This record gives sequence, C-alpha cells and structure tokens, in this order.
Amino acid sequence: MPVMRQAFLLTLAALCAAGSASAQPEPAAAPSPGEIVAAAPVSDWVDIPAGDLLVMTLAPDAKGKARRAFIQLMPQPLGQGWVENIRLLTRARWYDGLSINRAQDNYVVQWGDAEGDDPKRAKPLPAGLKTVPESEYVSSVSVAERQAALAALPNRTSRSDPFSGFAFFLNGWPLAADIIMRTPISVGGSNRAVPPPTSEPAWPVHCYAMVGVGRGLSPDTGSGAELYVVIGHAPRHLDRNIALVGRVVEGMEHLSSLPRGAGALGFYEEPEERTPIRSVRLASDLPAADQPHLQYLATGSASFARYADARANRRDPFFLVPAGGADICNIPVPIRRKP
Amino acid sequence: MPVMRQAFLLTLAALCAAGSASAQPEPAAAPSPGEIVAAAPVSDWVDIPAGDLLVMTLAPDAKGKARRAFIQLMPQPLGQGWVENIRLLTRARWYDGLSINRAQDNYVVQWGDAEGDDPKRAKPLPAGLKTVPESEYVSSVSVAERQAALAALPNRTSRSDPFSGFAFFLNGWPLAADIIMRTPISVGGSNRAVPPPTSEPAWPVHCYAMVGVGRGLSPDTGSGAELYVVIGHAPRHLDRNIALVGRVVEGMEHLSSLPRGAGALGFYEEPEERTPIRSVRLASDLPAADQPHLQYLATGSASFARYADARANRRDPFFLVPAGGADICNIPVPIRRKP
Repeated sequence: MPVMRQAFLLTLAALCAAGSASAQPEPAAAPSPGEIVAAAPVSDWVDIPAGDLLVMTLAPDAKGKARRAFIQLMPQPLGQGWVENIRLLTRARWYDGLSINRAQDNYVVQWGDAEGDDPKRAKPLPAGLKTVPESEYVSSVSVAERQAALAALPNRTSRSDPFSGFAFFLNGWPLAADIIMRTPISVGGSNRAVPPPTSEPAWPVHCYAMVGVGRGLSPDTGSGAELYVVIGHAPRHLDRNIALVGRVVEGMEHLSSLPRGAGALGFYEEPEERTPIRSVRLASDLPAADQPHLQYLATGSASFARYADARANRRDPFFLVPAGGADICNIPVPIRRKP
Repeated sequence: MPVMRQAFLLTLAALCAAGSASAQPEPAAAPSPGEIVAAAPVSDWVDIPAGDLLVMTLAPDAKGKARRAFIQLMPQPLGQGWVENIRLLTRARWYDGLSINRAQDNYVVQWGDAEGDDPKRAKPLPAGLKTVPESEYVSSVSVAERQAALAALPNRTSRSDPFSGFAFFLNGWPLAADIIMRTPISVGGSNRAVPPPTSEPAWPVHCYAMVGVGRGLSPDTGSGAELYVVIGHAPRHLDRNIALVGRVVEGMEHLSSLPRGAGALGFYEEPEERTPIRSVRLASDLPAADQPHLQYLATGSASFARYADARANRRDPFFLVPAGGADICNIPVPIRRKP
C-alpha cells in the first residue's frame, strides 16, 4: 500500500510491547487513520478502471528482484490531452527499452528517451500525439462540489493552504482552487448584483507520488514522452506550471529508492547508471489473469472524512498532541488491492 | 548541497537550450532561488560549529563507493537534553558497528541497535544518559522575535500553516508556534488588562532531512540511541510528539535512497539488508584536516528573505504562475561547504 502510509514512529521495542498481551484490559484507544481505513465498508472503495492503470516494468534490481510500478492515470477532465498521448505512446510500446534518466533527491525521478535531445539519436515518436495548450494545466470544478469537499476536511486543512486559496479532494484526487472575487460590476451607471460563478479554476497538486509531464520552456507543454514522479516533499510551486497526469499507486519504492544522479538536476552521468524500462502497458491491454485490480477510498465517503480527521488529529496511543490540521499532501488517498 | 534544492524541472532538451548561446540578448529574468543564494554575501552565511556536526560513515555501497552523511545538531535551547545524550553516545563510540534497520517509504529511515529490544542481546548503553521529560518537546521563543521572523516570510507562508498557529525560521531552523489567547482575566470582580506574554511555546518541525529520536510509548521520550531521518513529505503530525535533534546537511542521498524494508513499518526482515554504520564522530573530535566546514544561510538575513520570496513566487523563466506562497518545508534552509 504505497500511498496509504499511516505509520507510527515506534521503536522496535515499543512495537513489540504494543503487540504483547496485557493482564488488564486497556482503555479503548481512538482509532488510528489506518484502522479507520481498514474498517471502511466495501461500498466506500472505488475500483480503478483497468484503462486508467499503467503497468511499468523496470529491469530487475541488482539482486534479480522484479520491479513493477502501477500508475493510475487521471480521470476526466484533468490532464486529458496528455493522458491520451500517454495511452497512445503506451500502445505504440514507445516507452519499452527507454530508461530512468534522472533522480534528484527530495524532488523527482524522471524517465523517457535519454537521447531525446539529440535529433540524430532520438527515438522517433509515434504519429498522432497532440500538442496540448498551457491552458490545460488548469481545469475547473463546480463551486458547490468544492464547498462540499472543503466541509469534509479538518478545519485547518480547509482554510490554510499556503499555496492557493483552497485545497481539497474531489473524485479521489487532491486539487487546489483559486478564490474568485465576486465584486458587483457597474452596468449602465448602477451597480448590479452579479450571480456568483457556478464553477472555479482548479488544478491537481504535486503531492508525493504524483506523476507529471516533463517539458521545456514555455510554450512547450511536453507530450507525455518524458514523465516524472515526485519523490520528496510536495513541490507545490510546480502546480499550474506543468501537467500532472496521475500517481503511482503501487511500487513507488522502486522509484523513490533509486540512487540519486550526480549530474546537474540529478541526471545520471553514466549511461549504465540508468534503470532500463522493460515495458509499459495499460492494464486493460493485459490478459485478464495478469490485470491488477486496485481501489482507492472514495474521497467523498464518510470513511475518508474520518480518516482525514484522524490524520489531522492523531489520537492513537503514540501521540500526545494532535496537530489540529494537516496539509493536503499529508492526507494521502488510501489505495489497496481489491480484496 | 542536499538541503538546498531549488532545482527546475527541465527536460534534457530544455536544459541544453537554456545553456546555448543566443543571437539576441535575452531580457533579464528574475533571479531564481538558487541564483539569490549564490549571490548572498559572505556575511549572510553562518558557520556550523564543529561541535554541532556529526559525521556518520556507513559501509560503502555495493559498488564500493564511500557513504558519509553530516548531521547538524540543534543549538540551544532546542532539544538539548537529547543532543547531549547523542554527544555522549558518539564520544563513547556507541553507534559504531550498529546499523540502519528501517526504511519506510515517504516517511523515515531509522538507525540504532537492531537487537535493542532483546535484553540478552542489546548493546549496553554508556553511563550518564539523561531521561529527558516530554515537556522538552516544546521550547519557547520571544514574541518579538517570532513577529520579526514572520514579517520576513511571504504572506501566505506566514499566515497559513495548516498544522499550527505560525511557522517561521529562527536562527537557521524551521519552527512552529502556538497562538496564545490574550483575554483579560477577572481579578477581584473587575476585568484587568493583562500584559501580553513576552514569549510563546515553539517547537522545531518535521521537514525533509530533519533528524529525530525514536521512542516507545509515552512517557518514554527516547534516549538518542535510536535516531531517524525524514525521507518523504513532511510528517508534521509528529511535531511536539517526538524529539527533533538536528538535520542532515550533506549526504542525505545515502539515506533517502536506501532500499525500503518489507517488514511492518519498513523494518528490514533480514539482517543482511541492514546497512552497517562504521562510525559516528563529532567533527570537533576529528583531526583538523579531516573536519568538514559547512555553513547555512542566516535565516534573518536579507538574502534569506529574498530567497524565501522567490521560493514562494517563482519568477525564473520556467514558471508561468507564481504560487504566492509556500509551506515552511518548501523553503529548505540553504547549506553549503564553506568556500
């Protein structure tokens, strides 16, 4: 469960102590975030469609152990221009045989064509890729949905996003939105009330494990041929400046634990340092028996609201002082294999 | 420079383009955070005392490459009970021969005595370790200093900490503080004005690369014999619940890129998966020629204020939309080797 990490910081000793039998019945502790997730009813879990799931197989590690990562692509309407390019590149088997070329500590791991900057050696791209405009970095949400989503979050989380007006979860994804000023406008010399907008600009945010599209300088927006994943503290300054297209939902450790590159921006200096990508496939294109089945906890569910509250107000026995809040990326959306 | 990571997310192609000669002079771009740091005058840099610097040497990696990490211990008055224990353990060479026993993705890497939970096999601790009370998780700062520190930060950063009242930098460290209510109290039947407090509770925060003290359940506070470092998104829910004692200022990549443990909480299941710790030394106890000399950018300096503003409002050519703010952990304190 790479995205759901509600772990406690216990010493080994405490871990053993907590598991040992006690002569006295202990007072019922408040449930931990993990316990709330484990108790969530089946109806609070949402299947990730096989058509939204990439299976990336890396070369085995130095000990011969297999390495696979699953990437959930964003649903409509988020980042769909790039998502369609990525489906096209995947079905063309374009990523097969490429490599992970960059690992910058506390920032990103990035993959694609290591020779992409050399016109003579670059791997030809398949036909049909779209050029997606910069306007697509931002989508929109209905004000009513945003308000409901904020109401479900702990107080400090909903009112204190240091990077934008609001941050919240919608349809399983962390989003941020702008506050739109609703001043009356002057029409024919008199101020008329203007109906409040029913939708607002909103965009996905760069939390840990989110996957985005490498690009050059504006107006380039990247095609999806070069992708990165966040491996450190959320680089939220990238929000609205680059396309997000999904998140790693399993196997994140195979990417986050790669040796960091010694070159500028964490690029590997020697070709042999790069990790080969054996293949990338859409789960829906795999034989049925090979398709992974994953689910995320519905972010509009009562279980998720309890989970978010417990993340912001840790009441399990390890904790003395609940924070009273949490930033949006400190509330990772729980993911599981479908039971 | 493992803590100062102002990196751009550029494709290889854009990296090359940016470095190429241009026929037309380009308009002067606003400086990036890294450029501001590089231009900071010598007087804005503070030496890290050799007595505050731990040199941790791990076993070489699989390719025989040396691995060293430097840890800056916190200054007075933060966490000093544990810091003194750690100096004592270091001088007793107690950490030598122990190992890194845990690597939990997006959370912590932890080291100490892997047999510490077994009284028969645990390594005996040196005499003289203190038991530090839980009250020491929180320190205090002067209200005037906190106000000045907040004023130097971007607006959204200073007013929007999702985890506490305030977050700011003081003497080179990220801190959070509580808002104290200043209501008049009733004395002898009448409300009397109460002079505002001159100091407030404050505590260090769990940003990436911060080092803390593993512990069991309350009232245990840990001795410092078991330490962890944050390798993922800031787990700020640990603030005030566990002791922070320092931060990794160089060599962080040797810890953050370790393979994740497959056991509960990321503990390694097989002893051979643990990374041996060859030695831990105070830099001040090394021969003068072997002592590393590091500096941090004074967080009260004009350079730091410009750097923090640029982190929150990226104006370098890669960016289209400045965020307008940043959380405290998205403004890592710049560290460098002393020139």
